[in-house]
Amino acid sequence: MTNELDGPALTRENALRQERYDHGRQVLDAIDGEAGAKVIEALADIAPELGHQVVAWGFGEIYARPGLEPRDRQLVTLGMLTALGGAEPQLDVHINAALNVGLTPRQIVEVFLHSAVYCGFPRAINAVFTAKKVFGERGLLPLA
Amino acid sequence: MTNELDGPALTRENALRQERYDHGRQVLDAIDGEAGAKVIEALADIAPELGHQVVAWGFGEIYARPGLEPRDRQLVTLGMLTALGGAEPQLDVHINAALNVGLTPRQIVEVFLHSAVYCGFPRAINAVFTAKKVFGERGLLPLA
Amino acid sequence: MTNELDGPALTRENALRQERYDHGRQVLDAIDGEAGAKVIEALADIAPELGHQVVAWGFGEIYARPGLEPRDRQLVTLGMLTALGGAEPQLDVHINAALNVGLTPRQIVEVFLHSAVYCGFPRAINAVFTAKKVFGERGLLPLA
Amino acid sequence: MTNELDGPALTRENALRQERYDHGRQVLDAIDGEAGAKVIEALADIAPELGHQVVAWGFGEIYARPGLEPRDRQLVTLGMLTALGGAEPQLDVHINAALNVGLTPRQIVEVFLHSAVYCGFPRAINAVFTAKKVFGERGLLPLA
Amino acid sequence: MTNELDGPALTRENALRQERYDHGRQVLDAIDGEAGAKVIEALADIAPELGHQVVAWGFGEIYARPGLEPRDRQLVTLGMLTALGGAEPQLDVHINAALNVGLTPRQIVEVFLHSAVYCGFPRAINAVFTAKKVFGERGLLPLA
Amino acid sequence: MTNELDGPALTRENALRQERYDHGRQVLDAIDGEAGAKVIEALADIAPELGHQVVAWGFGEIYARPGLEPRDRQLVTLGMLTALGGAEPQLDVHINAALNVGLTPRQIVEVFLHSAVYCGFPRAINAVFTAKKVFGERGLLPLA
Repeated sequence: MTNELDGPALTRENALRQERYDHGRQVLDAIDGEAGAKVIEALADIAPELGHQVVAWGFGEIYARPGLEPRDRQLVTLGMLTALGGAEPQLDVHINAALNVGLTPRQIVEVFLHSAVYCGFPRAINAVFTAKKVFGERGLLPLA
Repeated sequence: MTNELDGPALTRENALRQERYDHGRQVLDAIDGEAGAKVIEALADIAPELGHQVVAWGFGEIYARPGLEPRDRQLVTLGMLTALGGAEPQLDVHINAALNVGLTPRQIVEVFLHSAVYCGFPRAINAVFTAKKVFGERGLLPLA
Repeated sequence: MTNELDGPALTRENALRQERYDHGRQVLDAIDGEAGAKVIEALADIAPELGHQVVAWGFGEIYARPGLEPRDRQLVTLGMLTALGGAEPQLDVHINAALNVGLTPRQIVEVFLHSAVYCGFPRAINAVFTAKKVFGERGLLPLA
Repeated sequence: MTNELDGPALTRENALRQERYDHGRQVLDAIDGEAGAKVIEALADIAPELGHQVVAWGFGEIYARPGLEPRDRQLVTLGMLTALGGAEPQLDVHINAALNVGLTPRQIVEVFLHSAVYCGFPRAINAVFTAKKVFGERGLLPLA
Repeated sequence: MTNELDGPALTRENALRQERYDHGRQVLDAIDGEAGAKVIEALADIAPELGHQVVAWGFGEIYARPGLEPRDRQLVTLGMLTALGGAEPQLDVHINAALNVGLTPRQIVEVFLHSAVYCGFPRAINAVFTAKKVFGERGLLPLA
Repeated sequence: MTNELDGPALTRENALRQERYDHGRQVLDAIDGEAGAKVIEALADIAPELGHQVVAWGFGEIYARPGLEPRDRQLVTLGMLTALGGAEPQLDVHINAALNVGLTPRQIVEVFLHSAVYCGFPRAINAVFTAKKVFGERGLLPLA
């Protein structure tokens, strides 16, 4: 796996940078899978540094920390993305991630039902319709 | 009109649940009409409980209260949905609802112009373009 | 009533500016009363132009329009300020304004109960506690 | 424990309402404890119906559902309240609730560190300072 | 250039209104160019007053002020629109505007990378993807 | 200047971590000054890792990039913090930072006036009152 840094002048700083990217990339791949990889790829021709920081910092430094299980991080993340609003593309990625780390479709829908208490119905409904798209793509509908 | 609850074991709790749903459904149908019904239907295969709570609680318990006229509730609701941002699908439903309960197209547009003072132009413009879609579907354009 | 513009060089532009301010100030005084005046006053030593625009534009041009009754504008405004969050100082001013233009304390509380459906309980509760402060200052508690 | 409904005309509807309140109150007390009870009490003289709905609906109907463990609901809730911003009073209640249902102080702080990835540092920092207040009140500082 | 006001009764007030519109329109055209003009045009059959106020007030009174350079106003505006979320149509207009007033594509992307610190990655990523669309339309991709 | 990492087992990873912290701390000190340092200090007994990441990542990796001048970063930051709402403590820090990197009090106030166009008056007014507090502490009031 390569990053935007290569060539003969691979200094110590660049090597460290690559090392941090590679570490984060392992975490990203394990949690977000293909959906996360596509985002990083789509950033490559316009904002490669943003892609680098999502990977090296977001995943390599924060997600990689042992203090909270991956499934617990996805519960928090689904709550935040629902509350933010206008983050449907990220909800798509993280509903996939939630399934990847062991949350069930029913638990994910329960998260969004729960969110209505704190964010109101519009945020909850928009999140559920994003889940409907993801679950449909993964052959998980209808929920029994 | 049926709900997700049926079968021989229709216990007291289920009967009460159905009663609350039916009450809310009458309120929903009177205010939101077809646009609201479509949302509940779209939730059926993924989050029927969310659909139930929108109907039984949101409409059956809150909208049904006598303290504020339906048109007044829509004024408040249009203000909230404009301010929230990212709630265009719900604005669509509630611009329809606002027309259903007696607000005029001009009053609805005036709500969004007024919103610019408190939310800024981006939220106001996005709300107006949602109204343009709804008014177009109902043959109300151009406004004289 | 004077504005930040004075001196011998009161040109046509300044006269128009003062005219627009005076018009807006009449609307502000009629709706927001003392609570609104205090905000404008508090802006005078740091951002007089912001105070001018709140008055001349917000009240003189938008509030002054005939398309929506003052009480209807306050319903929309209370909905927006509740949804925005972090706007408690403005909620304070506009709960006062809502009382000034004829909404009852019970209707105002009903607005905030209604808001829970769209914004969730935290926004609704924070708005109610702002109302509790305003109603207390005006001797309106407890609500019967 | 009494609710706002009493007197000789305790009809079927009122009895059901009380039943739903009492059920929700058990859930509220088990999760939010004293901090939640204070909020309901503070609503009593201005918006008792909002207090009723927080208890009977929020806790009695949503929190009481079996699909998600109490600790998981608090993870989602802490994420939402951090993302919303301006919800520090509710964060206070739910940081207490998170401790009540078995999340550790370190896990709670890790939630807020994680939130920086999705909400940015200002929301994360405000949430941590709310936790600092709650942990201080409960004698949990400094974190080892 | 004409506005919605014409006919024999072009009173003093209407003349002033037209004057203010024309002034704002010059500022709008210089900054937002074609992208801004399209928004005003799209508002014409539903909310011409909103279009008027965007032009006459937003651009004629605020943007026209000398206290901040056009490029500085766009930096602030890009920050606000990124933070708001759900304002992608306005980001589109103002990424174009930022290029029009002399910010480079790399500076614009740096703004969005910087925004991740304060708003988190979802807002930053959505803004970058809007820039990717605008830059693509203007033949500016890939960034070297 | 020391960080939370010390003792005999100062491994390569810890040394790199300290190096990154020290680099970020230089940037933080140059931009945010005392106001920023106080935030990091206040995090020390509850969330030292959050303090570390604000410094090492936010300042060491993002602020330190050459693509945007410090004053330009503060313009973007003031715009974001105003739009977010509920970020008054961070606005306080960054109004100080804006002064530190060369923006004038009048330019800062102009930023907030400009923000009204995109965020509405409540956010603009809350930001100005935060500036009033900061300017007062620094003896900059009244603005001439």
